[in-house]
Amino acid sequence: MGEVGMAGAAAVQFRVTVVGSGNWGSVAAKVIASNTLRLSCFHDEVRMWVFEEVLPGGEKLSDTINKNNENVKYLPGIKLGKNVVADPNLENAVREANMLVFVTPHQFMEGICNSLVGKIKGDVEGISLIKGMEVRKEGPCLISKLITDMLGINCCVLMGANIANEIAVEKFSEATIGYKHSKEVAERWVKLFSQPYFLVSAVQDIEGVELCGTLKNVVAIAAGLVDGLDMGNNTKAAIMRIGLREMRALSKLLFPSVRDSTFFESCGVADVITTCLGGRNRRVAEAFARNGGRKSFDELETELLQGQKLQGVSTAKEVYEVLSHRGWNALFPLLSTVHRICIGQLPPSAIVKHSEKPPKLSIVESSAEFY
Amino acid sequence: MGEVGMAGAAAVQFRVTVVGSGNWGSVAAKVIASNTLRLSCFHDEVRMWVFEEVLPGGEKLSDTINKNNENVKYLPGIKLGKNVVADPNLENAVREANMLVFVTPHQFMEGICNSLVGKIKGDVEGISLIKGMEVRKEGPCLISKLITDMLGINCCVLMGANIANEIAVEKFSEATIGYKHSKEVAERWVKLFSQPYFLVSAVQDIEGVELCGTLKNVVAIAAGLVDGLDMGNNTKAAIMRIGLREMRALSKLLFPSVRDSTFFESCGVADVITTCLGGRNRRVAEAFARNGGRKSFDELETELLQGQKLQGVSTAKEVYEVLSHRGWNALFPLLSTVHRICIGQLPPSAIVKHSEKPPKLSIVESSAEFY
Repeated sequence: MGEVGMAGAAAVQFRVTVVGSGNWGSVAAKVIASNTLRLSCFHDEVRMWVFEEVLPGGEKLSDTINKNNENVKYLPGIKLGKNVVADPNLENAVREANMLVFVTPHQFMEGICNSLVGKIKGDVEGISLIKGMEVRKEGPCLISKLITDMLGINCCVLMGANIANEIAVEKFSEATIGYKHSKEVAERWVKLFSQPYFLVSAVQDIEGVELCGTLKNVVAIAAGLVDGLDMGNNTKAAIMRIGLREMRALSKLLFPSVRDSTFFESCGVADVITTCLGGRNRRVAEAFARNGGRKSFDELETELLQGQKLQGVSTAKEVYEVLSHRGWNALFPLLSTVHRICIGQLPPSAIVKHSEKPPKLSIVESSAEFY
Repeated sequence: MGEVGMAGAAAVQFRVTVVGSGNWGSVAAKVIASNTLRLSCFHDEVRMWVFEEVLPGGEKLSDTINKNNENVKYLPGIKLGKNVVADPNLENAVREANMLVFVTPHQFMEGICNSLVGKIKGDVEGISLIKGMEVRKEGPCLISKLITDMLGINCCVLMGANIANEIAVEKFSEATIGYKHSKEVAERWVKLFSQPYFLVSAVQDIEGVELCGTLKNVVAIAAGLVDGLDMGNNTKAAIMRIGLREMRALSKLLFPSVRDSTFFESCGVADVITTCLGGRNRRVAEAFARNGGRKSFDELETELLQGQKLQGVSTAKEVYEVLSHRGWNALFPLLSTVHRICIGQLPPSAIVKHSEKPPKLSIVESSAEFY
């Protein structure tokens, strides 16, 4: 299939390209594509950059998507919409776009941004759906910042309680968009993503929202370990709460502008809940604990996830590096302990033992209840 | 068994009576009794008032508790400690106590307080572990307030992610004590309840803490309905988040002193999580939705709970009365809808439909993110 709905295109229309075509990327393309058809401010066609793969039958992934309107590998059984055009050529996929939706594993973003330098239009706005962060010598770098710095564009983030397969079948859920300055741009993104079954709201706290999306995967590993240890719901709820507390405290330490209220949004408490109930980080961590740590996370990822990447383990490592570099390990027992369990330095049961004693967070305690 | 450890008793020791001997009351007695033995500031013996029942074998419940140190009806298989003395005579049970732990179904508290007037010592401190509230013409009355007003004593509350049977087997969990003025008294209660597996902390927000414990049961019914409708984890997380948001907004409307931070404590987010994962309100609501509402909550309670009471349904009714009386129903779609589903006025599926549109809470919005 080719250019759909070009007849309605006008100079003021926004053209969207989704950079990424995994599970969440495909669902995002579907959600967006139904809105670009419906709303006149958007160009109908949604480009989706596909990292090309050859399927077992010999066909190219991008060709099957364009032939069947379906990503048979990462979102089988769901029609993306005829106006989604898969494109394996990154440069070509972004050429016309002025709204770029980034949704790839976070490890690939630096390379993708490198390829995009000089290849995008001048008026481009970006949004990142990516969970994770880059750690550099000088500290953590959020993906939205990486995109802004490398491409010179403004970049929002969208995070929330978003298990892709459930949104794909239009079950009710919510999301939070974080923005830095422009409320107008944030509201354009809200419009692009909103569906009756997908409530999106915007808050002016990009770092808080993005750190929620990143750090919750580490908490999900903690919750999965509790599941694998058969500790029960009280313990799981306590670990999730302590996780949310450490997410909040670390975010505020890293970025003093981060707001408490962000953690009550979908990106905060709801995403912690959904990720700790059903996500893949939780699932693999449960298997890890049931095996008593004898199979590594890498092995279990290969066994259980069919090529999907486990963000939590690498994020835990990156968070640990940040904490170590700043001398904060003792302040964040849960986040630190997850990494040490992941690398086999501590047994899975340490997740409860090391969380039982609340740390003295005196350096950040502005009030008795800060932490 | 009789008076234990009287030899160590001195004038400065605090004597504890637990008023109530259901599932949670029995666990509370066990937790407390191990501390009164260990800590010299407390008298060893813990009295437990038992609402007398005759067991199927013809024996009295209080006699079997005193013979076997076990509440065979409400907490079978768990030793309470030899220093727990069951007493079916309320007046006798409280006569010597200066620390009263109230843990009965909330419907019974007014009657119990009536019986206690003039029967307790002058220096008594109370703590309520009861979830629920009394609704009067002039508005809601928290149980701690009812106790304070009727008995003329100071009364704290203890709430949190506390599934009794899990604490009984010493799985890690947390709780929050809410107090009004005296931090010293709150810390005495913290000492009485704390265990290595049970982390208790105190916050100066008695209304916030108590309303959490009350309102979360209504949210648990909403979550159970979502489970029974097989809506998935995204939807469940969204409903739990919206529930927590309405809990917070209603608490702040009723008591302007209520603090946001309380909802990050164990009594807030953690209790919502644990109650929505495993509590009895969730369980019965799931069954209600699976039956398409054809069996009433009363019937299902009798079928599934072996004599335990379902707090959520009566709390939902009481909350609905408060909301109706103040004209706030439209501001709290989730809390209102739960009651209307419980009484058969709306189908179970309404829980999602009516929560999808966030209400305009302009009268309480102090900032964009208040609600």
